[in-house]
Amino acid sequence: MKTLGLDLGGTKIAAAVVDDGRILDATRVDTPQTGFPDVAAALERAARTLLERGHGDVAAVGVGSPGPLDYRNGTVLFAPNIAGMEDAPIVAELERRLERTIVLENDANAAGLAEHLFGAARELESSLYLTISTGIGGGLFMGDRVIRGAHGLAGEVGHMTLLPGGPIGGDGLLGSLEAIAAGRSIARDASYGYGREMDTREVFDRARKGEPKALTIVDNAARFTGIGIANLAKIFDPEGFVIGGGMSQVGAFYLDRIRAATAEYLRGYPEADIRLAELGTDAGVIGAAAVAAQAVG
Amino acid sequence: MKTLGLDLGGTKIAAAVVDDGRILDATRVDTPQTGFPDVAAALERAARTLLERGHGDVAAVGVGSPGPLDYRNGTVLFAPNIAGMEDAPIVAELERRLERTIVLENDANAAGLAEHLFGAARELESSLYLTISTGIGGGLFMGDRVIRGAHGLAGEVGHMTLLPGGPIGGDGLLGSLEAIAAGRSIARDASYGYGREMDTREVFDRARKGEPKALTIVDNAARFTGIGIANLAKIFDPEGFVIGGGMSQVGAFYLDRIRAATAEYLRGYPEADIRLAELGTDAGVIGAAAVAAQAVG
Repeated sequence: MKTLGLDLGGTKIAAAVVDDGRILDATRVDTPQTGFPDVAAALERAARTLLERGHGDVAAVGVGSPGPLDYRNGTVLFAPNIAGMEDAPIVAELERRLERTIVLENDANAAGLAEHLFGAARELESSLYLTISTGIGGGLFMGDRVIRGAHGLAGEVGHMTLLPGGPIGGDGLLGSLEAIAAGRSIARDASYGYGREMDTREVFDRARKGEPKALTIVDNAARFTGIGIANLAKIFDPEGFVIGGGMSQVGAFYLDRIRAATAEYLRGYPEADIRLAELGTDAGVIGAAAVAAQAVG
Repeated sequence: MKTLGLDLGGTKIAAAVVDDGRILDATRVDTPQTGFPDVAAALERAARTLLERGHGDVAAVGVGSPGPLDYRNGTVLFAPNIAGMEDAPIVAELERRLERTIVLENDANAAGLAEHLFGAARELESSLYLTISTGIGGGLFMGDRVIRGAHGLAGEVGHMTLLPGGPIGGDGLLGSLEAIAAGRSIARDASYGYGREMDTREVFDRARKGEPKALTIVDNAARFTGIGIANLAKIFDPEGFVIGGGMSQVGAFYLDRIRAATAEYLRGYPEADIRLAELGTDAGVIGAAAVAAQAVG
């Protein structure tokens, strides 16, 4: 089924017409930082570009959005990296502007669903997606569906507490996986440890060269990521784990460490199947289009 | 549908004929500690007692068993509290002895399913069962089904790591929920802290009287149980949590502490609905009978 996916990011809005996981046409516009009305207009513009290029027959439009969402009311409660998105009625506004069925989904759920259906986990019955970038998000998938949970909270795996008394996260809690192992946490630890501003890329560059301090920071992040994955294996036990997001691009140097840490904390249990995401930045639009297809299919 | 449930415990085997969650007839026999052949004979004896009391028309027999199970082969890999259960072919042996369809289920999954379908969570679409006794087990339920996971591991929530470097558990890992907050862990901490053998009951008695050392032990166990529940809310987000097992009988004194700790680690997220189990020790046979009914229904 041909549907349109919109992926609302902190800097870009990606839009694509997608049929069964294949992108037929795509476009991008900048994400305004000037409030929800401008964001809605930009989303409409991206969608209209494709609708007017011969894709007026799409069955529905899916939107992958950051931030906590209220699925019942079709609103974004807030978006950490986009200004003026507090209580944004994104579904109602896009329905009015595009006169089509609009389906809202959390951006990590959308990207993870794309990997589950069409990417790294496409042959698996169940999978868990972990996106590691500035922060850490995730999604749970069974059959062909997202498990959203009772309050849309399922898959918020970056916020599980793994080190009570550990570093504080953006959620105000101490010792979450995200506060220890996300990109921003690695940069925080390196900046403190080296006594000057240092970004995640430099930490990994130094670690690759075998510098002990950088290696300690990288090993610690990989260790807690492994503890998190081992916990998830004991709780949800998916057939496979898919790791996406910016930090998945570090490649084997980091993934091998995550796999070793996971194995250590799964001693005596079946081994976890950990894979790298395959769809890159296209996962967001493909997943958004997929949830739209599921909603009207 | 009328089915027969068998609940294989460390000291007793409970058997009941159950129809849609109602116990029509029940019996008990001691659990032999003399090896699997005697255990199989005892299970047969308990079942036959009921079959010969006018319940020969049961559609199938469900067995709730402790220990890691191999669902594919219908075997118990081992049972921590029953001697001689290594690689016990429980399904094949009972099929031969009883000439009926035998359905195997993990004991925590069986008890949790009974609470999900007929007990504390009966009106909920999804629930998570946590059984806190000597150890800590659990089960995940969606719709009317157990989520077993890809390797039968789902719901092993007692083994999630919450304090890397913390106390060692029976699984050889440091700092699992079970190793910190189960009954045996509380007794270990009290025995060390008081410098003499002390059981869980005495710790709670002393804590109720306000004794600081005992209160610290109880508060610490409740805190980590709350951290675990908050993590599970962020991962699976069930409509409700049900707490069963021996330690649920401590009542409000302990449950209030668990609720407070959960709320602390869910700040900013929707509140968790935490309930006490309602079916008591009947949960095991009711759930075992329910999985049998689902398997043939």
